Amino acid sequence: MKSDRLIYLPLGGAGEVGMNCYVYGYGPEGAERLIVVDLGVTFPDMDGTPGVDLILPDIAWLAERADRIEAIFITHGHEDHIGALAHLWPRLKAPVYARAFTAHLGRMKMEEAGLDPMRIKTVAAWPETVTAGPFTVGFVPVSHSIPESAGLAIDTPQGRVVHSADFKLDPTPVVGEPFDRDLWAEIARPGIRALTCDSTNVFVAHPGRSEASLAEEIERLVRSAKGLVAATTFASNVARLKTLAEAGQRAGRSVCLLGRAMRRMITAAVETGILTDFPKTVTPEDAAEIPRENLMLLSSGSQGERRAATAQLSRGKYLGLEMKEGDLFLFSSKTIPGNEKSVLRIINNFSEMGVDVVDDASDRYHVSGHANRPDLVEMHALLQPQMLIPMHGEHRMLRAHVKLGQDAGIPGFVAPNGAMVDLSGNAPRIAEYIEAGRTYLDGAVQIGALDGVVRDRIRMALNGHVMASVIIDEDGEMLGDPWCEVRGLAETGRSKAPLAEVLEHDLGRVLASAGARLLADDDKLEDAAKRAIRRTAMDEIGKKPEVTLVVSRLG
Amino acid sequence: MKSDRLIYLPLGGAGEVGMNCYVYGYGPEGAERLIVVDLGVTFPDMDGTPGVDLILPDIAWLAERADRIEAIFITHGHEDHIGALAHLWPRLKAPVYARAFTAHLGRMKMEEAGLDPMRIKTVAAWPETVTAGPFTVGFVPVSHSIPESAGLAIDTPQGRVVHSADFKLDPTPVVGEPFDRDLWAEIARPGIRALTCDSTNVFVAHPGRSEASLAEEIERLVRSAKGLVAATTFASNVARLKTLAEAGQRAGRSVCLLGRAMRRMITAAVETGILTDFPKTVTPEDAAEIPRENLMLLSSGSQGERRAATAQLSRGKYLGLEMKEGDLFLFSSKTIPGNEKSVLRIINNFSEMGVDVVDDASDRYHVSGHANRPDLVEMHALLQPQMLIPMHGEHRMLRAHVKLGQDAGIPGFVAPNGAMVDLSGNAPRIAEYIEAGRTYLDGAVQIGALDGVVRDRIRMALNGHVMASVIIDEDGEMLGDPWCEVRGLAETGRSKAPLAEVLEHDLGRVLASAGARLLADDDKLEDAAKRAIRRTAMDEIGKKPEVTLVVSRLG
Repeated sequence: MKSDRLIYLPLGGAGEVGMNCYVYGYGPEGAERLIVVDLGVTFPDMDGTPGVDLILPDIAWLAERADRIEAIFITHGHEDHIGALAHLWPRLKAPVYARAFTAHLGRMKMEEAGLDPMRIKTVAAWPETVTAGPFTVGFVPVSHSIPESAGLAIDTPQGRVVHSADFKLDPTPVVGEPFDRDLWAEIARPGIRALTCDSTNVFVAHPGRSEASLAEEIERLVRSAKGLVAATTFASNVARLKTLAEAGQRAGRSVCLLGRAMRRMITAAVETGILTDFPKTVTPEDAAEIPRENLMLLSSGSQGERRAATAQLSRGKYLGLEMKEGDLFLFSSKTIPGNEKSVLRIINNFSEMGVDVVDDASDRYHVSGHANRPDLVEMHALLQPQMLIPMHGEHRMLRAHVKLGQDAGIPGFVAPNGAMVDLSGNAPRIAEYIEAGRTYLDGAVQIGALDGVVRDRIRMALNGHVMASVIIDEDGEMLGDPWCEVRGLAETGRSKAPLAEVLEHDLGRVLASAGARLLADDDKLEDAAKRAIRRTAMDEIGKKPEVTLVVSRLG
Repeated sequence: MKSDRLIYLPLGGAGEVGMNCYVYGYGPEGAERLIVVDLGVTFPDMDGTPGVDLILPDIAWLAERADRIEAIFITHGHEDHIGALAHLWPRLKAPVYARAFTAHLGRMKMEEAGLDPMRIKTVAAWPETVTAGPFTVGFVPVSHSIPESAGLAIDTPQGRVVHSADFKLDPTPVVGEPFDRDLWAEIARPGIRALTCDSTNVFVAHPGRSEASLAEEIERLVRSAKGLVAATTFASNVARLKTLAEAGQRAGRSVCLLGRAMRRMITAAVETGILTDFPKTVTPEDAAEIPRENLMLLSSGSQGERRAATAQLSRGKYLGLEMKEGDLFLFSSKTIPGNEKSVLRIINNFSEMGVDVVDDASDRYHVSGHANRPDLVEMHALLQPQMLIPMHGEHRMLRAHVKLGQDAGIPGFVAPNGAMVDLSGNAPRIAEYIEAGRTYLDGAVQIGALDGVVRDRIRMALNGHVMASVIIDEDGEMLGDPWCEVRGLAETGRSKAPLAEVLEHDLGRVLASAGARLLADDDKLEDAAKRAIRRTAMDEIGKKPEVTLVVSRLG
């Protein structure tokens, strides 16, 4: 019989910022009992995933072993950690554990998906623990940009593993628990076999700043404004919303929340007792009656999301409210790579209105929720793990994080998505490579990233699309002329005649001269039609479109 | 008779960074003689312009007045200033003037488009001038990130206007002329009626750094490398290529240029006498034989362009060359907003190979080609224009630039694309709004941005596409069942049956129960079919696809 082993397997989040999903296992090889940490999403974009609603980790490996899953732990309520829960849970069906605020958000997701919200169990912070097969897991509070983020202390028969989750070292986080060095030192006391650690900000050289450091600067900015003040941040950043709202209040302004996501987060924080003293807010209807110099709006959509309140304000009236010459708009947020153009569009819209925009370039009105380089060094020193496995980052970040650990004498290891690491020995080693990938939520359906569906969309967008219809009669002969419709292509080209007509004419000629054998064979017919259409289109408009041929065979 | 007036009209570049095209006119209202400054392009992206090859300014207004155009002046050879020349020239047909290096690049473009390269006249630097109707125009050298950029001194019957073009205040630009304060003071002496001025870097607070300041840092970096060193920058940044190549040479490395664009620029610079002492380069074939610690590659594609040398190196072998563990890759360039994801993809690919990447985050190996905020203040002070009209920038930049001028007592004015400004009075005023917009070069055809072609592509990419074919026989009845083909949609949905079959079945049922009048009317038939298909698709997969119906009527 083989001896038991301790494994770690990232299925998402190691090689990207987003879509976090990590697996730990313990037991005989191939029969390990498993726990899952986080089920997050990442967001689609027009470049690579047009039309897709959400990107989920491919959990095929896990789903095939669902009977071996003891529990799912959610470290905090950010979408890249909890967003896939309700979409993937039906294939895993294990009990879900989270702290109160996170559990609250998770239950809302389960309910919306028609699932039983009571599958999610609330767990108190360390020293409370959950026993899940060979694992005993405790939620150890960390500070982050959402309430109740928690690192996990995972006790196994081979010692303790710490999964840092998303964290920063903030002694004054405004909402929620400060980072507690003594508590973490206690966690470290028995010795840490491995630390899987957040790598997001490994390239940021200065020590992280506290959330509390923003209050004064923001208040000064709000006080300096003559007209309406509006600000945006991540809806889940409850502490920032509080800082912004309090700055508004102290500057003599009524505060109005715009956007469902923001109101939802505030409500969740109040209902779970995390937020006790948020300034009183007014409704948008009431806000419209308040003199603009006495009003502060907090609007959702800091990443330029087209339908969010911020984007709508930048395009004109929203719920009766409107930005004007002399107003101030504050982005109390960082723009995530890929969202720059959307955010700049909003800033330029505001500029056209005469609104002064303060963005993250100033670095005075936003702090990150992740540990910077010196903070990571401190965390390593605090935990002194036997080995460091960076997670939550692009490959370049994981690689830099390993080097950072090595500088302090901690051996590290880049384990990208799909790399199953055996943590049992003195040094980690790759045990196996698992097929890890992405699944797209597309409308109501989950499709594989490699199914070709999205590839076809991209091709239609790049090349345009020609649909041709050919009727073959009972005798195997072409009935009438072929018909063509074009979509996403110039209406006329070199010959100045309508493109569809030129295509029909040329296709008709090609097929008329083709033999009966070609017309009888769907594949050959399609091939010939595609070639004819592409050749003509290339001549006419200099493009080779996608072609779909519909062959109708009568009789 | 109306009195003569002096007008300024941006058709591109005022409200964006890119697609520069500015018009000046002098004469009676509606009969002004015109000159055009720059004919640039901007680049398409998947978000808004999938499949498009280039974005050109919409010059309909100019083309209708082609008989009034005296000349076209190209300030420098960057694509956002010269890229549309050969595409738009046939509609303008005016003589084109540029300095030698720019003219050389322009002639290559004309030749490739089958146009007469001799339409482009070479002009020497100031004090040489070109007389174009009521205008006398001189090319006054400025420093920038391409050789021979020139501001224009435009003398009119109402005084001198200065069009700054793209510039920085660089006393040691490595290649080309330094910024010459005395020369510009001389230009300013008669008084400047208006300054139209580059706004790109108005938000950059520190004074610009000289190109020459990079040599030492880059050489130090190259010397520190143990393995192969590769670097990328804009192909047109001849000075930077020289700095990089010399650093390689001094560090004992042979230099190899990868990428057609780069070799082309170097050749143009040598042929026009601007570049006299570029280090000797080796071919890729020879480079493959040189020990990697003695080799430096300069590769094109600093913005992550998929087909450029840099991206290819990041994916594996390119022309027999390959990056490996311990090699160094330097981005001696800034990532333009919108290109972040492409550049990060390359950096992460290199990270997976074990290559150390140095990017623009360090700010040590790249300097901008545009005047920063303090440099703009200096330029304003040097020229002391009666009025300032910012150009070459997003709206937020133009607006900030106006404020900057106002701080120094210079009245300014945001004139976005399409705003015709009358410069005749003491203060500028908008005379008229012209329809300004964008034209897409799509394959071999130019299409209007509002033609709906690209909108259709985006819709197909977001929603997928269903093609249905219905045959109506001589009696006006449906012949057989409808046929459906789907593209860019999940193959199966809720019912687990193939989506195309479910659509065919439902569509067949709907049309079978439709009356003869509906089947006889193409529009009504199409409407009914679209509704039926979208409803079924929504039920099956939760998406409403684009639908194209091909109706074949027999007889």
